[in-house]
Amino acid sequence: MINKVANGQQAAQSDSVAVEEPLEIRLGYSTPDGRATRSISITMRTPGDDNELAAGFLYGESIIQKANDITAIEVCGPPAPDSGAHNVVRVELGPNVDVDLGRLQRHFYTTSSCGVCGKTSLEALRLVGAESLHENTTSFDRHTLTTIPGKLREQQETFEKTGGLHAAAAFSAEGDLLLSMEDVGRHNAVDKVVGSLLLQGRLPAGDLGLMVSGRASFELMQKTLVAGMPLLAAVSAPSSLAVQLANEFGMTLVGFLRGDTFNIYAGEQRITE
Amino acid sequence: MINKVANGQQAAQSDSVAVEEPLEIRLGYSTPDGRATRSISITMRTPGDDNELAAGFLYGESIIQKANDITAIEVCGPPAPDSGAHNVVRVELGPNVDVDLGRLQRHFYTTSSCGVCGKTSLEALRLVGAESLHENTTSFDRHTLTTIPGKLREQQETFEKTGGLHAAAAFSAEGDLLLSMEDVGRHNAVDKVVGSLLLQGRLPAGDLGLMVSGRASFELMQKTLVAGMPLLAAVSAPSSLAVQLANEFGMTLVGFLRGDTFNIYAGEQRITE
Repeated sequence: MINKVANGQQAAQSDSVAVEEPLEIRLGYSTPDGRATRSISITMRTPGDDNELAAGFLYGESIIQKANDITAIEVCGPPAPDSGAHNVVRVELGPNVDVDLGRLQRHFYTTSSCGVCGKTSLEALRLVGAESLHENTTSFDRHTLTTIPGKLREQQETFEKTGGLHAAAAFSAEGDLLLSMEDVGRHNAVDKVVGSLLLQGRLPAGDLGLMVSGRASFELMQKTLVAGMPLLAAVSAPSSLAVQLANEFGMTLVGFLRGDTFNIYAGEQRITE
Repeated sequence: MINKVANGQQAAQSDSVAVEEPLEIRLGYSTPDGRATRSISITMRTPGDDNELAAGFLYGESIIQKANDITAIEVCGPPAPDSGAHNVVRVELGPNVDVDLGRLQRHFYTTSSCGVCGKTSLEALRLVGAESLHENTTSFDRHTLTTIPGKLREQQETFEKTGGLHAAAAFSAEGDLLLSMEDVGRHNAVDKVVGSLLLQGRLPAGDLGLMVSGRASFELMQKTLVAGMPLLAAVSAPSSLAVQLANEFGMTLVGFLRGDTFNIYAGEQRITE
């Protein structure tokens, strides 16, 4: 129960809030001395699709390169006292996967792959070896693009109840929504989409676009790039670094996609009439 | 220049986007072997108020307990090629400040102070020793509260131009906005507010409330708590863990504060007619 204040009156009322719980990702991998297990990340997320979240996180961080790098993945741990969610996911990697934990540490010290004073993040990203999408010729029809937010909204069941979840979706050039995910964290929603595509053997996805319910930051653009997707469309505004990254890597960036209007910040050649 | 698509027409148009650049925080501190300097964080932020951001970050992570722990703080580094921003801030701590980098590492491995399977984040937070606010008797008048979003909006100059910035503000029980900050990252906006209060010698601020332009997550609630502020008000929805944390530590949590309506999720005793 909450107290709702309106027109100077206060009244008790039932209410739903978006569930937020910590998820710990434990990685099992081979070292010269045998198998090792390490807790590599805890993120605050909405329970559900946790395998996909973990897989997408590992892929986005370039810890794994393909679905086959994962030999087992399962949610475990006792149920949390409040939500009943299981807040640990264990990922086992194959014996031939070379795990660079320095890369992870860099992530945790940076949150965005940038670690060098005075350089932009783009230079750091080039070092990681993301592939340019300048040669990608997928195009998206103007009208088709404007239908995506409505389709995404239809899928957002929890948002309707709580107003507290971000959403992300992968869609085709024909305007079909392949899958959508919700989470309190927008990065998590994108990781869930990317992880799901990965586990389905659909990455890199040069034929798909990614739609997000909020803003387009550098990090979301980076995740889109690593997944090989040539277009990111956001309901809200992009940041300067997101625009730079899109230009640098030949991606299309659409912002303020609402109703039948939107802005093209980069890669307009992919948007057709 | 961007391309704006509306009513089936596409036209070039000038546009502003929110600036996003990496900020590296370098910490200088004393060890048994002498002084050490270490890069402890890189966050994607909107340039400006970087000293406050760094101070607020260190305070929120409990690396420092008071403004006097800092002996020097300055923005440095060469200007970034794109924005001209200086993307390094150097913070020197006094010789008697005992720096626990394990605490920082825990942060980077968690993003939210939680590291133990099956426990909720609240248990981990208790270990850090945050003070309960159950005894805090500050109250906020209903009508006064509804005036805060408008006052915050008036301060948000960049948001008006770009639509791409989050905002945070500290306000008094009388409804005065003490200060407000904008950033592409909502955590950064809150860190800037907390850091500014810290550097002004205003923390803990048991007489102030914090307002944020977006949602109320666990992490924002945690930052509010560490600053000793008894109330967090958000324009959008709270998460389940934010509500739990508020109840656990005797804080007031207000969500969907829009026009003259809002919801009280915790600590309703502080909201008066």
